[in-house]
Amino acid sequence: MKIAILKERRPGEARVAATPEVVKKYLGLGFEIAVETGAGDGASLPDSLYEQAGATLAKDAKAALAGAGIALKVQRPTAAEAKAFDRGTLLLSLVDPYRAGAELKALADAGITAFAMEFMPRITRAQSMDVLSSQANLAGYKAVIDAAGEFGRAFPLMMTAAGRVNPAQVLVMGAGVAGLQAIATARRLGAVVHATDVRPAAKEQVESLGAKFVAVEDEEFKQAETAGGYAKEMSDAYKKKQAELTAETIKKMDIVITTALIPGRPAPKLISAEMVESMKPGSVIVDLAVETGGNCELSEPDRIAVKHGVKIIGHRNLPARLATDTSQLYATNLFNLVSLLWDKAEKKLAVDWDDEIVKSTVVTRDGEIVHPNLEQVKAEL
Amino acid sequence: MKIAILKERRPGEARVAATPEVVKKYLGLGFEIAVETGAGDGASLPDSLYEQAGATLAKDAKAALAGAGIALKVQRPTAAEAKAFDRGTLLLSLVDPYRAGAELKALADAGITAFAMEFMPRITRAQSMDVLSSQANLAGYKAVIDAAGEFGRAFPLMMTAAGRVNPAQVLVMGAGVAGLQAIATARRLGAVVHATDVRPAAKEQVESLGAKFVAVEDEEFKQAETAGGYAKEMSDAYKKKQAELTAETIKKMDIVITTALIPGRPAPKLISAEMVESMKPGSVIVDLAVETGGNCELSEPDRIAVKHGVKIIGHRNLPARLATDTSQLYATNLFNLVSLLWDKAEKKLAVDWDDEIVKSTVVTRDGEIVHPNLEQVKAEL
Repeated sequence: MKIAILKERRPGEARVAATPEVVKKYLGLGFEIAVETGAGDGASLPDSLYEQAGATLAKDAKAALAGAGIALKVQRPTAAEAKAFDRGTLLLSLVDPYRAGAELKALADAGITAFAMEFMPRITRAQSMDVLSSQANLAGYKAVIDAAGEFGRAFPLMMTAAGRVNPAQVLVMGAGVAGLQAIATARRLGAVVHATDVRPAAKEQVESLGAKFVAVEDEEFKQAETAGGYAKEMSDAYKKKQAELTAETIKKMDIVITTALIPGRPAPKLISAEMVESMKPGSVIVDLAVETGGNCELSEPDRIAVKHGVKIIGHRNLPARLATDTSQLYATNLFNLVSLLWDKAEKKLAVDWDDEIVKSTVVTRDGEIVHPNLEQVKAEL
Repeated sequence: MKIAILKERRPGEARVAATPEVVKKYLGLGFEIAVETGAGDGASLPDSLYEQAGATLAKDAKAALAGAGIALKVQRPTAAEAKAFDRGTLLLSLVDPYRAGAELKALADAGITAFAMEFMPRITRAQSMDVLSSQANLAGYKAVIDAAGEFGRAFPLMMTAAGRVNPAQVLVMGAGVAGLQAIATARRLGAVVHATDVRPAAKEQVESLGAKFVAVEDEEFKQAETAGGYAKEMSDAYKKKQAELTAETIKKMDIVITTALIPGRPAPKLISAEMVESMKPGSVIVDLAVETGGNCELSEPDRIAVKHGVKIIGHRNLPARLATDTSQLYATNLFNLVSLLWDKAEKKLAVDWDDEIVKSTVVTRDGEIVHPNLEQVKAEL
């Protein structure tokens, strides 16, 4: 069976859905691989490396897709791209189904069986296919590198003959996968790191990385802390005290990195214009949620906004800024899902449509939008 | 006595010769301070901070200089700027005297007593005035941050559910102040670091920072290694073997940072076009010597040149890219020199023209170019 690796066409997308290293693994399973010319260029993976790995180059998407049973992409195809697919082709890609609109319908209309990788269930068996985690991890690293790039000072404490350079004070808001990697990276670079999270149970993880957990540690907090991962909603009184503490903390920070995302919903606003104004000139904010509206009121997509002397970095697609590594992990995530769909002995597709992983991720099939979470989206199209 | 802090006018210069913190120290010695409006803007030090520190704001350079006994700058004044100085004013600045040409004469003609900070002697007593070291230190840090910013992969080893991300392989060429800080920073970020230096004695310092010293360790090397800091010139046969080893090493590197500068002379060429071509696509070179011709044959000033898929970063003025911290250290270096020239009890200038520090740094005085190293420069003007 042939797998088509397509070139990404959306602006700013530098990743690729299979790397030469992963191509070799597909060949090992008995697949043929067709790579659209230039697919890996943005990730510094030239065509020659794909050829050396054993792939065939195809001059365009149509040629790559001709006779392919599976197509791999990073970003959802546009309506125009979808027309080049044979009916029944399996597509593994990010789909962003809640905001895909007519393009989701176009996938269905084209008869594509689309696996939306962001719907991967958070179960142990699916960890190796979890693109949100793999990309968020590297995005957390890159957020710190971007902050250090824009900051007019060094991160570590330095003792020099001309006096001391103080370490940078960094606040990471949200201690999920991206936040924890941001904490670890800022610590590596020698910053003093603080972190917040709505889950009191995150305190232990934050502290294990050498950062200070910023929280009003009253009785309510202590009870919630021991209640485990997804603790009960905190009281309004607690939230108010915590917000005040956060505002006071932000004033003293050099760098703030925000990582709060809610799937399918606008990002929560964590940093008001007033808080930005309270920061020192030359401070830097990195907003990882800018694609869904931003955690900071003053973020602007795909640019560095300077407000009150503070630089606010708002890259929509941070993983694409580290495209070689993010492509490698994304490609491995996809490979692990393809392996699940493949009968290695018979060398043919063997999709178990009742498998939780398959059920959770397939969003279009047989000309229909099929995912239970997308009933409302479907009704509105 | 009044000190004038002037705004920098050369393109790309974001530093300032005194920070608000250092202004306070001058006031403590009994000086008055006039800061030209906007002087600190590039270093995120707004006028308001200077006013709070006790400085007076001056609307332009002329107003700042009126009646000033001392003027502080980062970059040498242009011929036009020099005209605004009163005769006899002491100027502390970088002068770049070998390449200043007519502008050096203009300083003399204006009757300015110019202290060229880059001529500071390398003696213990002058360490706290050594601007080359203080700026090189932070430039070495920034070189790594710039490399990490352009590199499509992460620096540290990461173990993830989607497999391993290998650590970056970094080579630092030249283990002086900038090189050692680059090694330390790349190590902090988790890279595997290699280093070269023409002095075999640098091996110990490189290894103490956790990097691997790349050298042909034959008998000649071992003898030179134990001979101390500035060892004898190595033989041509040794140099050839070492060049071959370096070329082989560069092929395997993801990042190369070059820091080889020779004062008053063009930078040595360490990386040929052929070596660039031998590197993997997506690799990054940071050339710290681009201002004096570059260590890499393919560097281009003030841009990121992409050659054979390799990004070559050629910022002329790396310290200005970290202007808040570099200004702080530079300002402290200048303050330490001013303190030496000042009679704290009598509160007046008391320059000992025979002091080694003074003799080594004064390049123009009483209308003349006076430094012994500049006889040839003077003859050619």
